[in-house]
Amino acid sequence: LTLGIMPALANDELLKLEKDPKVWAQQAGNYANWRYSALDQINTKNVKDLQPAWTFSTGVLRGHEGGPLIIGDVMYVHTPFPNTVYALDLNQEGRILWKYQPQQDPSVIPVMCCDTVNRGVAYGDGKIILDQADTTVVALDAKTGKVVWSVKNGDSSKGETMTGSPVIYKDKVYVGIAGGEFGVRGHLTAYNLKDGSRAWRGYSMGPDSDTLIDPDKTTLLGKPVGKDSGTATWDGDQWKIGGGTTWGWFSIDPEQNAIIYGTGNPSTWNPSQRPGDNRWSMTIFARDVDTGKAKWVFQMTPHDEWDYDGVNEMILYDAKIDGKDRKLIFHIDRNGYAYIVDRTTGVPIRVDRTFDFVNWAKSIKKEDNWRPVVDPKFSTAQNGEDTNTKGVCPSALGIKDQQPASYSPRTGMFYVPFNNVCMDYEPYKVSYTPGQAYVGATLTMFPPPGQTNLGAFAAWDPTTGKRVWTINEPFSVWSGALSTAGDVVFYGTLEGYLKAVDAKTGKELYRFKTPSGIIGNVTTYEHKGKQYIAVYSGIGGWAGIGLAAGLEGGTEGLGAVGAYRSLASYTQLGGQLTVFTLPGK
Amino acid sequence: LTLGIMPALANDELLKLEKDPKVWAQQAGNYANWRYSALDQINTKNVKDLQPAWTFSTGVLRGHEGGPLIIGDVMYVHTPFPNTVYALDLNQEGRILWKYQPQQDPSVIPVMCCDTVNRGVAYGDGKIILDQADTTVVALDAKTGKVVWSVKNGDSSKGETMTGSPVIYKDKVYVGIAGGEFGVRGHLTAYNLKDGSRAWRGYSMGPDSDTLIDPDKTTLLGKPVGKDSGTATWDGDQWKIGGGTTWGWFSIDPEQNAIIYGTGNPSTWNPSQRPGDNRWSMTIFARDVDTGKAKWVFQMTPHDEWDYDGVNEMILYDAKIDGKDRKLIFHIDRNGYAYIVDRTTGVPIRVDRTFDFVNWAKSIKKEDNWRPVVDPKFSTAQNGEDTNTKGVCPSALGIKDQQPASYSPRTGMFYVPFNNVCMDYEPYKVSYTPGQAYVGATLTMFPPPGQTNLGAFAAWDPTTGKRVWTINEPFSVWSGALSTAGDVVFYGTLEGYLKAVDAKTGKELYRFKTPSGIIGNVTTYEHKGKQYIAVYSGIGGWAGIGLAAGLEGGTEGLGAVGAYRSLASYTQLGGQLTVFTLPGK
Ligand SMILES: O=C(O)c1cc(C(=O)O)c2c(n1)C(=O)C(=O)c1cc(C(=O)O)[nH]c1-2
Ligand SMILES: O=C(O)c1cc(C(=O)O)c2c(n1)C(=O)C(=O)c1cc(C(=O)O)[nH]c1-2
Repeated sequence: LTLGIMPALANDELLKLEKDPKVWAQQAGNYANWRYSALDQINTKNVKDLQPAWTFSTGVLRGHEGGPLIIGDVMYVHTPFPNTVYALDLNQEGRILWKYQPQQDPSVIPVMCCDTVNRGVAYGDGKIILDQADTTVVALDAKTGKVVWSVKNGDSSKGETMTGSPVIYKDKVYVGIAGGEFGVRGHLTAYNLKDGSRAWRGYSMGPDSDTLIDPDKTTLLGKPVGKDSGTATWDGDQWKIGGGTTWGWFSIDPEQNAIIYGTGNPSTWNPSQRPGDNRWSMTIFARDVDTGKAKWVFQMTPHDEWDYDGVNEMILYDAKIDGKDRKLIFHIDRNGYAYIVDRTTGVPIRVDRTFDFVNWAKSIKKEDNWRPVVDPKFSTAQNGEDTNTKGVCPSALGIKDQQPASYSPRTGMFYVPFNNVCMDYEPYKVSYTPGQAYVGATLTMFPPPGQTNLGAFAAWDPTTGKRVWTINEPFSVWSGALSTAGDVVFYGTLEGYLKAVDAKTGKELYRFKTPSGIIGNVTTYEHKGKQYIAVYSGIGGWAGIGLAAGLEGGTEGLGAVGAYRSLASYTQLGGQLTVFTLPGK
Repeated sequence: LTLGIMPALANDELLKLEKDPKVWAQQAGNYANWRYSALDQINTKNVKDLQPAWTFSTGVLRGHEGGPLIIGDVMYVHTPFPNTVYALDLNQEGRILWKYQPQQDPSVIPVMCCDTVNRGVAYGDGKIILDQADTTVVALDAKTGKVVWSVKNGDSSKGETMTGSPVIYKDKVYVGIAGGEFGVRGHLTAYNLKDGSRAWRGYSMGPDSDTLIDPDKTTLLGKPVGKDSGTATWDGDQWKIGGGTTWGWFSIDPEQNAIIYGTGNPSTWNPSQRPGDNRWSMTIFARDVDTGKAKWVFQMTPHDEWDYDGVNEMILYDAKIDGKDRKLIFHIDRNGYAYIVDRTTGVPIRVDRTFDFVNWAKSIKKEDNWRPVVDPKFSTAQNGEDTNTKGVCPSALGIKDQQPASYSPRTGMFYVPFNNVCMDYEPYKVSYTPGQAYVGATLTMFPPPGQTNLGAFAAWDPTTGKRVWTINEPFSVWSGALSTAGDVVFYGTLEGYLKAVDAKTGKELYRFKTPSGIIGNVTTYEHKGKQYIAVYSGIGGWAGIGLAAGLEGGTEGLGAVGAYRSLASYTQLGGQLTVFTLPGK
């Protein structure tokens, strides 16, 4: 503000763009993480005629998460490591306007827990922001692809990596950090969009000065949390390698000036090595966007014993509950429960079990302060080190993982990709070495008892806390959903199908076998009067790690290889964008 | 024949299959190399409605040459190095029935001159035959993918590699060898289909016992060639590292019991190091399929000075000429001329210049015994070592390269992918070391004077020796053509478009942008009553070597990198199969 110049705030533009259904300017479509589009040219009647319009190979194999951004006549496409970014010309069926190819040390690959994924770039203020695997945050000129600034957010030699998508709001860009399987202490960091200088960093654990928690003002279930809550529930210095990473999705609540997101698992996966609640891992945080100060916290899975990272998307929505207008968060946690939380206070309103087979907790109820009542049978901590706790549901993949759900304001329903997977979990003692895996558990994964399908896609009614319809899928649905005003819901499957279903009934209306398994998130946009659907193919992510990394042993890939072995007869490595539309001009 | 058991001859089955338009059992569609299909469900009227039906990522990047085979409900798909082979179930949109993944030493990659390509597998007698890059010829059980036999055809440590497609006829499989840029002496080898034992090998040069040339019976322009023709036109022992490799296409003429094919450039590329005609490089051979004995030979470019390998496909067809029924070969040579040759005698009938800009030869006429009259201005031999001979047309890529043309018996026309490229060529002295490049020339490539497009696709009328229509393309057409009874001709472009044009007029009827540049050959088949079109995407080959191998310098990639640099704004590495069909059940 020197010289009296008022910088154009990115949020003005982005808040405007999120209301324009022709563009797809944020990974989630809007700050509330709806993944909903007001476009309705493609609808339940005509979606059966959908067909590929053009395609683009990214030149990179392995897991393609996230999706393209579309702004005006340009589509921004990114890849997994080495995190190439392309600007494609929509007027020329994807001709390449520019390409940014970072030079990254491949030594980062082995410290990425769950494939070399990246969940996409962000757009704001004429810049494209990319979180590189090696923790470089880079701002590219959206017109030329030239680097405007770049900053290091971590140190990959210590196992710190980046797989998430940055979010831009006002004059800042918000980025997380990954590495919960390497003893990384998580944090959310805000950089100034203008020049990449650091504005603030809030750690998930540690002294209040690190967590930016105010003992008196930051609340937990409506009450001040008290002093040093980020160290008090840890044994000694374990918090310093305590996990709680921030590799998932972030939501922005402009009304509250808040960024809302969840933190990952405490490390190690061997719970006996870290007695206590391990705050604030597995926690929903609401922080002030300008200062990072925590407004409230809520820990979903205290003292995690199953790797139920709390990072899944927080979908912000407003609804009447008991006659009152409420400002809410909808969040299906890895732990198998669907949370509806008051986003002004962080106090849950209802918590519902998503599937009957979820068994690790007997209940999660208000009477217990929303603290799960753990079933001792499935407590890997109580069973202890070197004991194989069998048949825990869900598996460490969670009832859902990073694959984001969609919210349709037309139906009031949430469309959720699910993992139908249970596990055996045997913790063992592990010692910490920087940059080395710090896992301490052997896992095996399989479908729930009596079932064979590993996944499902379902519509969730928040008013009843129940699934309205459920589509069984042979494999986990590792792709993010899209709902539209055409009342069509789209998602991808690990075998490679893009599917379109009726938002009201779940009836399948269309499917197309794309080149490789889909773990990307479906997006839509309008160009020259036509609606398009775009999605990446490229098998990988945790579920696809066997194929992506060429692993064979059943317990390899943190336990995922065995369950998904038969994927190899459906699909192979890929890296493509497929753009669909209806026939005709 | 021991025990009196008569082996089922593969040719019975294959001769039957080549008459069944539902299958595509040979890379070229038939033994005559027509690349024509009698299917007509997709025709000039409805091809505009074509759309992708399903797609498949091969899991491998770089240049995808050749095409899939389709027999019954199974499609056999292959990849460039590491030469994976898949059997895909057509009843399940390409579900993988089996996968064969050879273990090959990657040290073969740097001795492949023109990308890690492979031109496809062959089918016969229940086996799939693959030429691996490392010169292993392997027979797989078509039902299970299990190895039935495997045999080494060469030694990659000496620069011997395999990129071609084997051909199966009767009880034998015929394979070539590549490595003309490494001083490899070419040969065609027949293995017994049953067990992989070697039946015969005919070298391109060397003593008669090596070449299987009979001084008295093998003819050149109707006369016996005489003794040791394969050494007489070489200086000393140069023939031992003389090139003449056999990496292109082979045709079978059942009536004559002959295999007909061309041989590649003499090595080195520096002509001053190998005075003489360098027989039998650059030669069309007709050999007896059972014994390998040469019936006739015809050398198109004696003492090559431009790398105009003679390996392009020989299309066998019959036609009336001057009222007489003739058995013919149609062959457009790299040297820029279209040859029509009597295939019973090897004597040319007419030789026509394809494009006016072809300038290295003043003429190729009967009066000169069909020997080109070289323009001294463009003679890299006469200009000598370390002199840059400028503006030679065509370039070393040839007026066309391995990308095969198609013949439609309905129109009587040949549909030809062309390179519109000229060159500067500066030879230099090079010494031979086994396994090291033995090239000895620096090249630069560019479009002909006054032009900007690097390619064309044209219809050739053999009765007039002229192009009937010509479509200019921004880049060389490096994909093989397909013509059909629907009077549609298909080809792919380096930018990645599959195009369909009217066989009679060349009018574009359809285009689709596939994921990556197309250098594969278009195929068609019928399944459950529907006609499908299938093609690989995956930029590479010599024209795409800059992208494929990540080369930047203009003269790198044997001179091709500079000319095709702008390809990088159209496409990136890929490896996909796209299967197209008309809408509806
Ligand atoms: O704790 C972490 O830092 C961390 C990081 C990541 C990641 O960066 O991808 C994943 C996980 N954990 C994880 O628990 C998990 O299930 C997971 C799945 C995936 C994926 O992309 O498929 N990433 C990750
Ligand atoms: O002399 C040889 O042995 C040899 C081999 C190959 C090959 O194996 O691909 C090519 C060539 N030469 C060649 O001259 C050439 O133009 C060429 C193009 C390509 C291709 O696949 O794009 N290969 C080759």
